[in-house]
Amino acid sequence: MDEPLLVERRPLPIDGRLGQQLAFLIEVDRLKTVLRASTLAAVDRRENDAEHSWHLALMVPVLAEYADEPIDVGHTIRLVVVHDLVEIYAGDTPIYDDKLRTDQAERELAAADKLFGLLPADQAREFRALWDEFEERRTPEARFAKAIDRLEPNLLNWMAGGGTWLTPGVTADVVRSRTEHIGQASSALGEAMRALITGAERNGWVAAGQQGDPGPA
Amino acid sequence: MDEPLLVERRPLPIDGRLGQQLAFLIEVDRLKTVLRASTLAAVDRRENDAEHSWHLALMVPVLAEYADEPIDVGHTIRLVVVHDLVEIYAGDTPIYDDKLRTDQAERELAAADKLFGLLPADQAREFRALWDEFEERRTPEARFAKAIDRLEPNLLNWMAGGGTWLTPGVTADVVRSRTEHIGQASSALGEAMRALITGAERNGWVAAGQQGDPGPA
Repeated sequence: MDEPLLVERRPLPIDGRLGQQLAFLIEVDRLKTVLRASTLAAVDRRENDAEHSWHLALMVPVLAEYADEPIDVGHTIRLVVVHDLVEIYAGDTPIYDDKLRTDQAERELAAADKLFGLLPADQAREFRALWDEFEERRTPEARFAKAIDRLEPNLLNWMAGGGTWLTPGVTADVVRSRTEHIGQASSALGEAMRALITGAERNGWVAAGQQGDPGPA
Repeated sequence: MDEPLLVERRPLPIDGRLGQQLAFLIEVDRLKTVLRASTLAAVDRRENDAEHSWHLALMVPVLAEYADEPIDVGHTIRLVVVHDLVEIYAGDTPIYDDKLRTDQAERELAAADKLFGLLPADQAREFRALWDEFEERRTPEARFAKAIDRLEPNLLNWMAGGGTWLTPGVTADVVRSRTEHIGQASSALGEAMRALITGAERNGWVAAGQQGDPGPA
């Protein structure tokens, strides 16, 4: 987190406000190197945060009709484009990694201060507010964005025939608990998620039933 | 292009309209495997189309203030999220590869028919229209999206100290010609692009001046 900015390797011949914005836009290239726990459907390698964020940005307009509350689709897309940026400095926290999850909020807050602080002050506030909105889930858009964020890796798990569902200690009930956000924003997508879990249980892609402690959602 | 769909490897336990939409959303995972000519700024490997599309989706709201015509930012983000999808079947066509560029339009039209045809008919029309809009550049949003699409790899070239600027036969004037879309949508970003080219010429990251034929923009 104390590394120099990428742009310092090759300072831009552009200064002022635009130079500051471009320095930020170069720094965020790092999101392409933050690996997630999920494996791609198309090839056998782990997904990175930039790919994941793009996937969500396409899933939102395709699935928006299933939101239980009316949402502004364009705004929801902005939320998902921005939602993982703090992981540039804070790293990805896999959903089934309870150890990393304990100090996730703290790490991400520090990362947000650093990253959004690269922008001119007005935009730092604007993009920080998008990230806060996503995290707090107090708007219909943020709740739908979170639902899609939870759904995508589960589609990849299905295609992998298990994926992170096979993490030691994870059972079908743990998966049900950690994907509850989906049904909270969309009953149709919640039902689809439950069909995936039931199918995965039947196929042996997740440990059955109620072993273990579901833990916090 | 005649390969089976990804979803056919593990049919979903969800049918009807939502099943069709999820099959499309799994198929587009392939965009993460379409490599571009550009190298990342953060690490030394080639960028893929999904990463590139995400990067544009963040650049658009950060740089929208520089659009010479008023734009709907949310709509412009949708254009960039969708703009490269046809490359799933048509492949990437590097900007300095004049051979591949000859049949690019034909390959991409066939790919668009196949890919968007996976969606329910109403959404097939909606997403095809976004792609057509981007390609035709008849709206301010499409022109700005195209400008950002051209700017991003040039930022990566700057960070690489050359990148695709060092393609044999490419000179500073070829780069000027192929990046004219930027200045057509934003005089400020056009000026920044010219500063990058001048700086690159000075640093020896692109062949100087007017050697070779700039060719079509």
